Amino acid sequence: MILKNCKYIVTQDKERRILEGYDIRIKGNLISEIGKDLSGDEEIDCSEKIVMPGLVNTHAHLGMHSLKGICDDETLFTWLDIVNKEEAKLTKEQVVKNTRDGALECIQSGTTCIYDSYMYGAERIKVFEDLGMRAFVSSTVQKIEDIMHVENMLKACTNGLVKPIIAGHSPYRCSKEVLEKITELSRKHDLIRRIHIAETKKERDDTLKERGLTSIKYLESFGFLGKRCLLVHSIWVDDEEVELMGKYGASVSHNPISNMKLASGSVAPVVKMIEKGVTVGLGTDSVVSNNNLDMFEELKVTALIHKHHWDDPKAMTYQMVLDMGTIMGAKALGLKDVGSIDFGMKADIITLDLNGMLPMNNVISNIVYCANGNNVVDSIIDGKIVMRERKVLI
Amino acid sequence: MILKNCKYIVTQDKERRILEGYDIRIKGNLISEIGKDLSGDEEIDCSEKIVMPGLVNTHAHLGMHSLKGICDDETLFTWLDIVNKEEAKLTKEQVVKNTRDGALECIQSGTTCIYDSYMYGAERIKVFEDLGMRAFVSSTVQKIEDIMHVENMLKACTNGLVKPIIAGHSPYRCSKEVLEKITELSRKHDLIRRIHIAETKKERDDTLKERGLTSIKYLESFGFLGKRCLLVHSIWVDDEEVELMGKYGASVSHNPISNMKLASGSVAPVVKMIEKGVTVGLGTDSVVSNNNLDMFEELKVTALIHKHHWDDPKAMTYQMVLDMGTIMGAKALGLKDVGSIDFGMKADIITLDLNGMLPMNNVISNIVYCANGNNVVDSIIDGKIVMRERKVLI
Repeated sequence: MILKNCKYIVTQDKERRILEGYDIRIKGNLISEIGKDLSGDEEIDCSEKIVMPGLVNTHAHLGMHSLKGICDDETLFTWLDIVNKEEAKLTKEQVVKNTRDGALECIQSGTTCIYDSYMYGAERIKVFEDLGMRAFVSSTVQKIEDIMHVENMLKACTNGLVKPIIAGHSPYRCSKEVLEKITELSRKHDLIRRIHIAETKKERDDTLKERGLTSIKYLESFGFLGKRCLLVHSIWVDDEEVELMGKYGASVSHNPISNMKLASGSVAPVVKMIEKGVTVGLGTDSVVSNNNLDMFEELKVTALIHKHHWDDPKAMTYQMVLDMGTIMGAKALGLKDVGSIDFGMKADIITLDLNGMLPMNNVISNIVYCANGNNVVDSIIDGKIVMRERKVLI
Repeated sequence: MILKNCKYIVTQDKERRILEGYDIRIKGNLISEIGKDLSGDEEIDCSEKIVMPGLVNTHAHLGMHSLKGICDDETLFTWLDIVNKEEAKLTKEQVVKNTRDGALECIQSGTTCIYDSYMYGAERIKVFEDLGMRAFVSSTVQKIEDIMHVENMLKACTNGLVKPIIAGHSPYRCSKEVLEKITELSRKHDLIRRIHIAETKKERDDTLKERGLTSIKYLESFGFLGKRCLLVHSIWVDDEEVELMGKYGASVSHNPISNMKLASGSVAPVVKMIEKGVTVGLGTDSVVSNNNLDMFEELKVTALIHKHHWDDPKAMTYQMVLDMGTIMGAKALGLKDVGSIDFGMKADIITLDLNGMLPMNNVISNIVYCANGNNVVDSIIDGKIVMRERKVLI
């Protein structure tokens, strides 16, 4: 397959090159050549399109899709109460349907790789495999019995495109024993372990009171921190904790829209984290706290909130933001061959129309500050076309 | 003309009703009937669409359209330096073309009424009249000689759809004498007078030092405040100033994306303003500080930043945000018959597809938290179709 006459290719390669008028050859599931005058059996005309790596969403709960908009503008306590009651009513069939509906919204808005956490892990793995979407799937663990899910999920993965993650809910819903078991199993199976951490001031204060340690130091105390560890939110962390996260090579999923919508009270210090060597990806969180799955919105709001928070327009640049939405997000999920358009990388590619992005004085600025999910025209995942001219082909 | 079988009509009427399965009759430039089984010569099928009032953008500088993306992620001082140099190069022809390009982007993303400020007022009035877009136009005044523009602009208006505004730049670029003259002329011609005010801490501190008064008290001292006064930004104002703004019935244009992108340092206290009787509309500001003209993004970011700033998810609700983007914005520009779908109101209406907005548990929440400008399918301004199936007809 050839992506022909690409008006702009945003490579996200090491030099962050932007190429004009080039072709891309895809062979199997890989990018095999970037050059001029390439030809092949199947050609997609990209002469009026931006071609860029697909976006990576490092935190979603697609199983909640049918609950979009059921509870907005409520304080966290009321929100949790209402949402949890509605979740309790969801059947397995509804969760599977929701996951599929959510994944379709993701594909249509430019996400090619997602980390999705909810109930019924094995069944959801099948949804992503059927759609041909790159995905990491977890069933959130709260009790020791829940951990058995992991073995089922490992068995359910058949095509290499979908992999499990072992996910502890949080320090307030999981005992230390459960979190230790998660750490052990994650190491045994070489899987990513994840936790929602330091999302609210109350959570941080409670951990400090009950464990005598800040949130990240508590995780360190039983070996949770490490290269295969994904810390979701990480808002209420101090400089010492940021230092620790960097020392252990941990990753963070930053979800600014969800954090602002739920009024989590502060902003995760991701600029400091990146300086200290933490890998930071972006995530939408669920449709009850966002309420869409449009990663382009997440890019723009990330740039805006950090400029605002640090009172400095240079605090978060468009290039940093796009890195978090592509290569850094992929790296946070342990993928080294996803997130850029370069020789030998996996062919996870989207194309955008130029609606609202003219004039094109600065391609990456326009992607971050002007584009949205409805600009996405085509989507290729693992070398296969999953959407063409906005029509999902599955 | 009949909008037929509307799936949802978001009326924004006094009861904020949402109607399902109704038709809307447009006669001349007015909404003449909302009912069932209406028929007419021209029918637009809305059975899979949300029908809502067009959005009102209370602050833009469309004349800068060709400068989109030329200067991002820079501190205000560098930004002003670069942008002003580029602006100095713009010819009259380029400003006219930019205004047209910008207005087309506005129409395509759901704005039906705009307040646009830049050079060459009379020429820009013609652009909006030719496009059939409802607009308020000003040529920014910095020196006494500039005020002559107003008479030319009044003469240039021919069809009632476009009206002038008298705009002083700011307290730091206009002398008190100039601002007094603006106040006088605005009263004489019954036109809105506008000023950029309290955008940065430095501006507030300088006014306090040089005039011995806070920004709004300074404006009050020579009679600038009043019902026909539009205060753009109004970020750095204290409770006493908010009280004054309400007392005089002033209006505010709130531009959160521009304020965050330029790191203006705080958030305009618009919730307090509304409580005190100030009319608050939303605006995108220019494509050099946003960088698109998508009012749907402005809706969502307004909701997010106020929840975040006040640490309270209830601080800014989706209904308040939609009000500011429609009826309150229209009122801020002095329009009482624009901004809602109701008998006798001007027919300024847009339709949206449901992309990214399913399931539809809450229509207004989905408009604010899930939609973007690319969802807009049709646009009707003053009873005339200006866009149909995303094709601008002019």
